[in-house]
Amino acid sequence: MEIEKGAGKLAKTLRVMILDKPGYLGKLTSAIGMQGSSIGDIRLLRMGLTHNTREMTIYVDNDEQMEEILDNLAKVEGIIVEDVIDLVHQLHEGGKIAMKGTRPLNTIGDIRKIYTPGVATICRDIQKRPELAYKYTAIPNQVAIVTNGTAILGLGDIGAVAGMPVMEGKAALFDRLVGVSGIPILIESKDPAVIIETVKNIAPTFGAIKLEDIAAPECFEIEDVLDRILDIPVMHDDQHGTAVVVLAALLNATKFSGLMLGKSAIGVIGLGAAGMGISKLLLSYGVKKVIGTDLQESARERLNAAGGEAGTLLDVMAGANVVIATTGCPGLIKPEMVKKGQVILALSNPNPEITPEDAAAAGAAFAADGKSVNNALGFPGIFRGALNVRARVINNKMKIAAAKAIAACAEEGELVPSILNDEVHQKVAEAVERAALESGVIKPWE
Amino acid sequence: MEIEKGAGKLAKTLRVMILDKPGYLGKLTSAIGMQGSSIGDIRLLRMGLTHNTREMTIYVDNDEQMEEILDNLAKVEGIIVEDVIDLVHQLHEGGKIAMKGTRPLNTIGDIRKIYTPGVATICRDIQKRPELAYKYTAIPNQVAIVTNGTAILGLGDIGAVAGMPVMEGKAALFDRLVGVSGIPILIESKDPAVIIETVKNIAPTFGAIKLEDIAAPECFEIEDVLDRILDIPVMHDDQHGTAVVVLAALLNATKFSGLMLGKSAIGVIGLGAAGMGISKLLLSYGVKKVIGTDLQESARERLNAAGGEAGTLLDVMAGANVVIATTGCPGLIKPEMVKKGQVILALSNPNPEITPEDAAAAGAAFAADGKSVNNALGFPGIFRGALNVRARVINNKMKIAAAKAIAACAEEGELVPSILNDEVHQKVAEAVERAALESGVIKPWE
Repeated sequence: MEIEKGAGKLAKTLRVMILDKPGYLGKLTSAIGMQGSSIGDIRLLRMGLTHNTREMTIYVDNDEQMEEILDNLAKVEGIIVEDVIDLVHQLHEGGKIAMKGTRPLNTIGDIRKIYTPGVATICRDIQKRPELAYKYTAIPNQVAIVTNGTAILGLGDIGAVAGMPVMEGKAALFDRLVGVSGIPILIESKDPAVIIETVKNIAPTFGAIKLEDIAAPECFEIEDVLDRILDIPVMHDDQHGTAVVVLAALLNATKFSGLMLGKSAIGVIGLGAAGMGISKLLLSYGVKKVIGTDLQESARERLNAAGGEAGTLLDVMAGANVVIATTGCPGLIKPEMVKKGQVILALSNPNPEITPEDAAAAGAAFAADGKSVNNALGFPGIFRGALNVRARVINNKMKIAAAKAIAACAEEGELVPSILNDEVHQKVAEAVERAALESGVIKPWE
Repeated sequence: MEIEKGAGKLAKTLRVMILDKPGYLGKLTSAIGMQGSSIGDIRLLRMGLTHNTREMTIYVDNDEQMEEILDNLAKVEGIIVEDVIDLVHQLHEGGKIAMKGTRPLNTIGDIRKIYTPGVATICRDIQKRPELAYKYTAIPNQVAIVTNGTAILGLGDIGAVAGMPVMEGKAALFDRLVGVSGIPILIESKDPAVIIETVKNIAPTFGAIKLEDIAAPECFEIEDVLDRILDIPVMHDDQHGTAVVVLAALLNATKFSGLMLGKSAIGVIGLGAAGMGISKLLLSYGVKKVIGTDLQESARERLNAAGGEAGTLLDVMAGANVVIATTGCPGLIKPEMVKKGQVILALSNPNPEITPEDAAAAGAAFAADGKSVNNALGFPGIFRGALNVRARVINNKMKIAAAKAIAACAEEGELVPSILNDEVHQKVAEAVERAALESGVIKPWE
């Protein structure tokens, strides 16, 4: 997607008066583009006699870049910047989610059916046959989005409350894309035991648990234990959601470049939550060799234990046909490390380990960054599918099915489809349902 | 409210063909009313040549009563019952609440503002200034509705999951009446320590905590400890929400009967969550004497410790000007126990300790049952007000202010207003805000 290229982390909205003659809108967009900022939506607000007024969202890396752009635009003839509006802050005011009643509550009759006394019948029915909770409550549609805020986006350990805007974003996507009720749960603790105990205690409220932005290595223990003790699916999105979308991207990237994924040696640079999730899923997919590297000894040991091979950065670059990097270190991969014919996915956002351009220039057969490889392609359909068939777990078969469904929805030349592709989430959900049924992880009705 | 009288616990919907001649609808309603069932909404579905088809909701005590009504209707000329529909079950299918996104998510531009990368700015702002969580997240509008299912409605200990329909009902009312996001949290444990620890751990997610349908005596410890350790309001609705609405009813009941509440001796029969909440609030209101009784020694001791006087049922009936009963024991108060001129609120649902008719016949100056005394008159405005001003606690001043606001909204002759009175929740919220400000329990902005 063109719009994703080189996009910075701050979204700003300019209100601009533009001389109503051919070429002036072009002057404006060029002036912005020349300074390395990318352009989002452009809306026409008003058509005047001599000037049109437009609102334009642009993405910059930092406030200094914004200042430079404004200084530069001041010199462009026929362009008057009226205002810089912080649309993003406006949009986030008051939060982005709300728990809503889904039934009419307009008459005393409505209340008597939905609340007391009518509700008592439903409670008694569930007391007698507990599985009726799956029919008469919102529980089977509710997913807890649990974080302790230790690995929020690329921002690191900022605390659970500061991570709430991301959790709300996930909940809003859940609602919009697949109609799941995502419920943020913030736990300000770094102790896996506290998180495990707390989630276990509130688990009856939910049909599934999505662990989110919890740092490695704690995330591994938390997920393993919860997955074992709970009879509902537990998935750490940063490991497995990412892995599913990366596998989808790899399926297409290797297709583009004529490689067979199963026969490739895959290099994984960075063995945190995402890198380990990717490594494990690739091994489960049947990839013969995963070689990986990380600065931490314990991370390398974890890869060896999972069936991969740990080595140095240079080992990985020299030994792999396909390289996936999730380190958060811009520029880590030097052009001279690239092998001719390699497929390189440098996924760190907003700045990749090597730009696709540099990688291609250095001889890569195919290269991409992480701008389009977004978890939101995976988790909505994965959870929707698991909830639909009341799966007990989300296993590798379900994840691989999801990845294949995502890959198949990509248009010609796309690595993965757009998040707003209406079809993809439905296809993922269906694929996950089938895989769950085939692998026998459905909870039987008592 | 006429509709509330003698209403049973099961709502059934009949689809009925009625001969289109004067008097036949009356025949139908009379036949149903004669058998002790009450009638809710009646909707006209179809006007036929000779018959009209209507849907009618009726409230019965049990399935046997329903069978009798159907047998009886079969004998009425011009009336054909086509179907008995379980509208209540239909309404509860799939649950009654959903977490919704509140911002548009239709373009990639929307996603980039609401989710990544735009959301990162908001997260960093909150990390730097934590109080901004109150501006840019849903947290200050979220109330956890926490239950362990040990005292659901009048049904007793049915478990947290079987209590979910009630929690969803509360959440739906929160949304409809005051726009609060109520989030059910089910904890299947009877150990106060587990509930306290769990709620403490997830508390950063919420602006307030509403404890719900947790049995006495555990409810007292759980509320006391959480209220002390958390800096957000914690309120057990069964104690205090009930107490607020009962105080409102008492303010009007005593006015009707020419008593002064402050100078009255108030008798409280049943010292569980509701009875203790009422006793404490009355003492805080300035009532000179609260005498109470309960079968349990520990409950009587709790009343003495709170500043009341424990005695026997006969002591209470002989010594009190005003009697409030919340025992769940139908018929506990015999007509011969009633003192001339007493005010009696027999609040157990659906069957009171003494019917208003029997109490009046025995000499009571004013008598009512609990049909209109519904918690849902209190909690929405109380939490809305506390959240609006970011109160740290919900104290007695706030509760008394809420009770006065509810009492003032009642129409001439009503004990309390209808839940669907548009004004009452707004008035309660405003009164609670003022009381919070005046009593200095507002959290200062850092």
